Amino acid sequence: MWISDRQKTWAATSAAVALLAGSVLAQQPPAAGRQGGTGRQGGPPPPGSFQRVAPLPFPDQPQVVETTGAPLRVTPLFKGLETPWSLAFLPNGDMLITEKPGKLRIVRGGKLDPQPVAGTPEVFAVGQGGLLEVAVHPQFAQNQFVYLTYSKGRDGKEGTTALARAKFDGKALVDFKDILVTDNWNTGGVHFGSKLAFGKDGMLYMTVGERNDRNRAQNTNIHGGKLLRLKDDGTVPPDNPFVGKAGFKPEIFTYGHRNLQGLAVHPETGAIWETEHGPQGGDELNLIEAGKNYGWPIVTLGREYSGEIISAQPANEGIEQPFVFWSPSPGLSGMVIYSGDKFAGWKNQYFLGALAGLGVWRVGLNEKGLAGRELMLNSLRQRIRDVRQGPDGFLYLVVDANPGGILRVEPAAAAAGSQ
Amino acid sequence: MWISDRQKTWAATSAAVALLAGSVLAQQPPAAGRQGGTGRQGGPPPPGSFQRVAPLPFPDQPQVVETTGAPLRVTPLFKGLETPWSLAFLPNGDMLITEKPGKLRIVRGGKLDPQPVAGTPEVFAVGQGGLLEVAVHPQFAQNQFVYLTYSKGRDGKEGTTALARAKFDGKALVDFKDILVTDNWNTGGVHFGSKLAFGKDGMLYMTVGERNDRNRAQNTNIHGGKLLRLKDDGTVPPDNPFVGKAGFKPEIFTYGHRNLQGLAVHPETGAIWETEHGPQGGDELNLIEAGKNYGWPIVTLGREYSGEIISAQPANEGIEQPFVFWSPSPGLSGMVIYSGDKFAGWKNQYFLGALAGLGVWRVGLNEKGLAGRELMLNSLRQRIRDVRQGPDGFLYLVVDANPGGILRVEPAAAAAGSQ
Repeated sequence: MWISDRQKTWAATSAAVALLAGSVLAQQPPAAGRQGGTGRQGGPPPPGSFQRVAPLPFPDQPQVVETTGAPLRVTPLFKGLETPWSLAFLPNGDMLITEKPGKLRIVRGGKLDPQPVAGTPEVFAVGQGGLLEVAVHPQFAQNQFVYLTYSKGRDGKEGTTALARAKFDGKALVDFKDILVTDNWNTGGVHFGSKLAFGKDGMLYMTVGERNDRNRAQNTNIHGGKLLRLKDDGTVPPDNPFVGKAGFKPEIFTYGHRNLQGLAVHPETGAIWETEHGPQGGDELNLIEAGKNYGWPIVTLGREYSGEIISAQPANEGIEQPFVFWSPSPGLSGMVIYSGDKFAGWKNQYFLGALAGLGVWRVGLNEKGLAGRELMLNSLRQRIRDVRQGPDGFLYLVVDANPGGILRVEPAAAAAGSQ
Repeated sequence: MWISDRQKTWAATSAAVALLAGSVLAQQPPAAGRQGGTGRQGGPPPPGSFQRVAPLPFPDQPQVVETTGAPLRVTPLFKGLETPWSLAFLPNGDMLITEKPGKLRIVRGGKLDPQPVAGTPEVFAVGQGGLLEVAVHPQFAQNQFVYLTYSKGRDGKEGTTALARAKFDGKALVDFKDILVTDNWNTGGVHFGSKLAFGKDGMLYMTVGERNDRNRAQNTNIHGGKLLRLKDDGTVPPDNPFVGKAGFKPEIFTYGHRNLQGLAVHPETGAIWETEHGPQGGDELNLIEAGKNYGWPIVTLGREYSGEIISAQPANEGIEQPFVFWSPSPGLSGMVIYSGDKFAGWKNQYFLGALAGLGVWRVGLNEKGLAGRELMLNSLRQRIRDVRQGPDGFLYLVVDANPGGILRVEPAAAAAGSQ
């Protein structure tokens, strides 16, 4: 029997009815949604309900954190950032950091400029919306191009994910231009997607969430719930898989996604890897292949926050399964595939931020599939919004908090030598 | 495309080949198996490999542990027990505790008798084998029956799971008798199953693992990989689902299981619930229904420790899906469905021990399915082998360690009042 057949009839069985008779469970509200916070507003949570583990304040001091391998030294940087969302390194090692409420910050020579970078767009600042991703063109030294994604408003009441390009002259954004305003409007404040990555093919990949309107993910006439592939000016590459095909937006590279919060290019193979949030228990690490359908919401291992199974089948013909999945959901966010040599044995491993999971998942693949995975740094209890590799080979974690900041992660041994 | 189609061809793709070229991953041994310990024998683990988080020593002092709800007070009891495996309460509140190497211990009036209970069987003491489950007959006051499961040897070189019954006269086991020696022999030391629970129907349910010979789980001519239903003398109830059916052992109640390490009867509905260990990423909480096939190894969400996908499809017609699953695997062990009133809101919730996960999973179901789940007590980093509810309404955790012991869990507020 398929999962849905049995579990969808669960409520009608004598077992469930009797279970609930006299039980406190029936009086419980559904568990808080992923973005619903701790449910602690308006009084304490009901006894026996399920709350997220609350994050700790952004740390003040460097600390050494144990792992199952070598210990790591974690150094907090730039405390006071307001809900930072993403981070990009310029070729000279300077950092651009987005703050979700709408500011772009710059770190020059290791020092955060107290003045935000001028020239950023007005954002539709609702829920998960705001100034989101920042990415730097691979030929920045020649063209100065910086890319931003953000939630763009219309008539003050609805929003969508927009992609903009500007030149960064070292002080301000100039020649700012929206190069793709996605067809993905609604009044809600969630699931904007918004991650960017330049492929080895020179193309710009962009994730677009389904705005919590799940049927958009299978509707190929709309950008929501898709991974897009664009030229660096936002136009459509002629070799995109659905170019010229009726019923498809030509920017679409893959579809059937929910809220894609991580995107990375493998440093050796050039393969595109993506993480996305499932609902209760369906977070995924996906290997992206052109034109494929990743299943949401018709095939998912997740379930409704209210309890029930979502998709009639957890797998089906014609649907890509996750390469790796997590249950319960860690809230996978930004990721990097490590290409440096500062951490022994980590080259080509995957480092995935975890929001609800309050740490970083290290994932290793081997020639057969999944070698293993480990949740690291969770003793810090920080909501990790993104993971980046610095030009120094260390990892930089974007902590989603207000006040938040950046955490630099080094091997403890190396850090001890450098202090 | 099915999960297996894409992932089984992974090694042949250019992505995988290129990923492995020049990568340390190819030189890594497979991750240690679930029962393989930390892999630290014979030197440090290879850099970048995946190790389990090591448990801490069994605690010396009571402590208050935070949860997302009310804090809990945890009190260590009987430190020095040698790899305890299970615990059962007698009607007078005394406890029987098995130690895996072969001893049965008794706690009278809260004090551990330094002398083991006489009359226990010789065990096939290999790997996970030993003296395992202890259960007390629901009419113990009338019949004094105690049940043990253990790994029984044959010719000193192979073993199987055996069920024995004896009378406990307060000091020793008498009239000891093997009432079912399962047809499940091999020379290995793993996957004995061995949990027991009396149903509301008066029948004795017993789990039998597949001895890491996975095809046994679908072979209904053998007891391995099954949940059995027996009369209290070990014989076959005439209303078992496969009685009289060719090709089926008549004791079988359900099949397609791997290593069933938790078994509990719902205190209100009488439904049978079971936990089992999947391989890398396939641990399950199952609602048991007579005669059903739970899929191992033809349908599983787990994967080989070496990396590859195991089953061609993660779901299929005629196969029961897990009610709840976990990925990665917490190593689910013994469980209880709470029927007391000492913990607000916990009535009818599920408490599942986690060996690798070093804590207790609290799981809530509602009329739609899964209300939520929370890993508790993991700051203690103890391998939890079993979870029991005491006659006092508190939880008792069996800690798999040598020296190990029992942890009593109370609401911190209640404990403060009682100290």
